[in-house]
Formats: sequence, structure tokens, C-alpha cells
Amino acid sequence: MPKVVDHDQRRREIIEAVWAVIVRKGLVNATMREIAREAGYSSGVLVHYFSDKDDLLVQAMRAAHREVHLMLETALSASELRSTELRGLDALREYMLACLPLDAQRQTLAAVEVAFWGEAIGNERLLGVNDQETEAFNDRVRTRLVEAQSAGTLASGVSIDAAVRRLRVLMDGLSVQSVVYRGAPTAAQQVEMLDELLGDLRA
Amino acid sequence: MPKVVDHDQRRREIIEAVWAVIVRKGLVNATMREIAREAGYSSGVLVHYFSDKDDLLVQAMRAAHREVHLMLETALSASELRSTELRGLDALREYMLACLPLDAQRQTLAAVEVAFWGEAIGNERLLGVNDQETEAFNDRVRTRLVEAQSAGTLASGVSIDAAVRRLRVLMDGLSVQSVVYRGAPTAAQQVEMLDELLGDLRA
Repeated sequence: MPKVVDHDQRRREIIEAVWAVIVRKGLVNATMREIAREAGYSSGVLVHYFSDKDDLLVQAMRAAHREVHLMLETALSASELRSTELRGLDALREYMLACLPLDAQRQTLAAVEVAFWGEAIGNERLLGVNDQETEAFNDRVRTRLVEAQSAGTLASGVSIDAAVRRLRVLMDGLSVQSVVYRGAPTAAQQVEMLDELLGDLRA
Repeated sequence: MPKVVDHDQRRREIIEAVWAVIVRKGLVNATMREIAREAGYSSGVLVHYFSDKDDLLVQAMRAAHREVHLMLETALSASELRSTELRGLDALREYMLACLPLDAQRQTLAAVEVAFWGEAIGNERLLGVNDQETEAFNDRVRTRLVEAQSAGTLASGVSIDAAVRRLRVLMDGLSVQSVVYRGAPTAAQQVEMLDELLGDLRA
């Protein structure tokens, strides 16, 4: 009987291998052969899942973003927050906490993102994907800010667009630093920076 | 008579070629051959200036930072600011304005930096250089904040270390966005973000 292949499971294993290789050895060394070795498959298996290196990088980055949303859902359903649906700035805070590079797992995801950015320079396809992913983040943040405004919990005079820009800059700046600077803000300092920013927005 | 070669001038031309190639074609295509073609030299000439691709990238990044300081000095000496030496938060604002990706030239320098960050993942040598460059920026910012504190123009209760972290995050977040996101903050929005931050610091 032929083995039944769980393609989603296998794709997931390969994506995790991509993340691991990027973090340990850099994108320049993330060859099909190296990724196959890390995942425990032959290079021949990989070609069924990725059309080329750009495709692999796009999938690795999108999977990193999905991972953050999965972690957010897990955190929410496991917490006392379960009984009440979070909205507005409280929901925004939970979302930002899920996105920020506060631990080794999220720092790995941030490294995938920084590697993607470096590779996207001069590459229209990767830039297009990055625009989409950035807009998706911005839309989620904007939705929560609009909720806060409707509920009267957003400080008067706050520009929602300007607030989105500040939150995005915090996110990207901390992602870069956690990946490439050994003196990067600690988890506690990151949360302090987030809460200072949210404090400015709160009515 | 043999031609007299101005090595500083030639190195400068080659560095500018590296910047141009990175921005247009990406680091992955910034080969010695491509850079030589852009600079108008043979590949053989380049080996006298760079030992390998990492060295080329280190020199390109350091030259980008020197360029920012040169632009700052030019701006200061050309302006009315000439007669009075700027100190504290005023000097800090000028420094940040020189560093932020406000125009095409600075966006090119930001692209070199983002490319460097992507390549630095998993590369101890590049990470070490990035740490040094980050500390140099942080030290300059810290010096100005200490000046402001001594002069009584820093708001009481401001943590200098926390202020350095905020300014660094602004710098890095805006650099990334100007390079990889087509909806990146405009120059006016960047200055607004800087002035909002400085407003929080001012006594």
C-alpha cells in the first residue's frame, strides 16, 4: 500500500526548516539542499512545494504571520479573557503583544521578516507581497482604533492614520533590532514602549 | 608616465556603484561583475578595494553612515544655524533629520542598511559591525539628551535610555518602511512623528 502523505504536515515541516536555516545560517545559505537536510527530506521532495526561492521565501513569511495569529488565538482562548470578547485598545494591545519579538519564537519569525525585507529590495514580486502583508497588519490595527473611537475610549484629537503609523514603526523597529542588535530592547522594555504609545491614545 | 590613481576617489565611485546596484537589483544581484560594470571599471580593479562580498557590504554600510554625517555638516554650515552651535534637543533634531529617509538620497542609504540587516542574520562578522554602528548612533543621541538634561530642557522624569530606544525604533522602523513599503510615511509624516517624540521629551 502506498504511504499516505499528509501534504499540509509536510509543508509545515519544510517551512519550519526554512525558518531554522535562515536564523542559524542566513538566507544566503538557505539553499534547497540545506533546507531539505534540515527537514529530513530529499531535495526532490521540496520542488513539489515551492516553485523557486522567492516562492519559498513568500511562503515562509506568510506562514510566520499566520503563526503569530495562531499564537494570539491560543493566548486569548487560554486566558481569562475568554469570557469577554476584547475590543478597541485592549484588543489592539493583545494583537501587538502577539506580534512583537518578545521571545525566541517570535524573534525567529522576526528574522524571517528581516531576511525577506533585505531580499525584497529591487524585487517587485517580493515588494508586492510585502505591501499586502503590511496592509493586512495596518487594517487590523485600524479596525481596533475605529472600535475604540466608537466606544469613546480613544483620546480626542488622535489621528487614526498617525496612530497606525506609530504602531507599525514600533513593530518594524523592534523586529529589526531583536534580529540584528545584541543590545536590543528586552521584552519588558518592548512592553513599556507599547504601553507608553497606547497611553497616548487612550481617552 | 604612469597614471596617478586617486584611490579615495575610485573607492568612492565603487561604493556609489554598490549603492546603486543594491537599490536597483537587490543584494543577490550585487556581484563583483555587476558592480564593476556600474562603476565603469574591470572586475580586476575591485579586488584591490574589497577582500570579499562581506567586506564590500561593510564598507558600503559604513560609507552610507558617513554620508549622513557629511549631509548634516553641510546642512548646518549652509544654514543660519551657523552662527550658534546647536546643542541638546535642537542638535538632536538636526541629527535625526539628517538620518531619516526623507528624500531619494537617504532612501538609497536606508536600502543599503536594510540589505545589510538581511545579510547579517546568521553572520557573526556583519552582526558585530552592526552592533558597533548602532552603538555609535545611540551614543550620539545619548550625548545630546544628556546635554539637554544639563541645560534643563529635558522634561523631568524622562529616562535617557528609554528615549534612545524610542529614537532608534523610529529611525529603524522608518528606514525599513521607506525601502519595502509603497505606502511608507511621507517626509512630512516622518517629521511629524519625530516632532511628536521630541515634544514628549521637552521640558
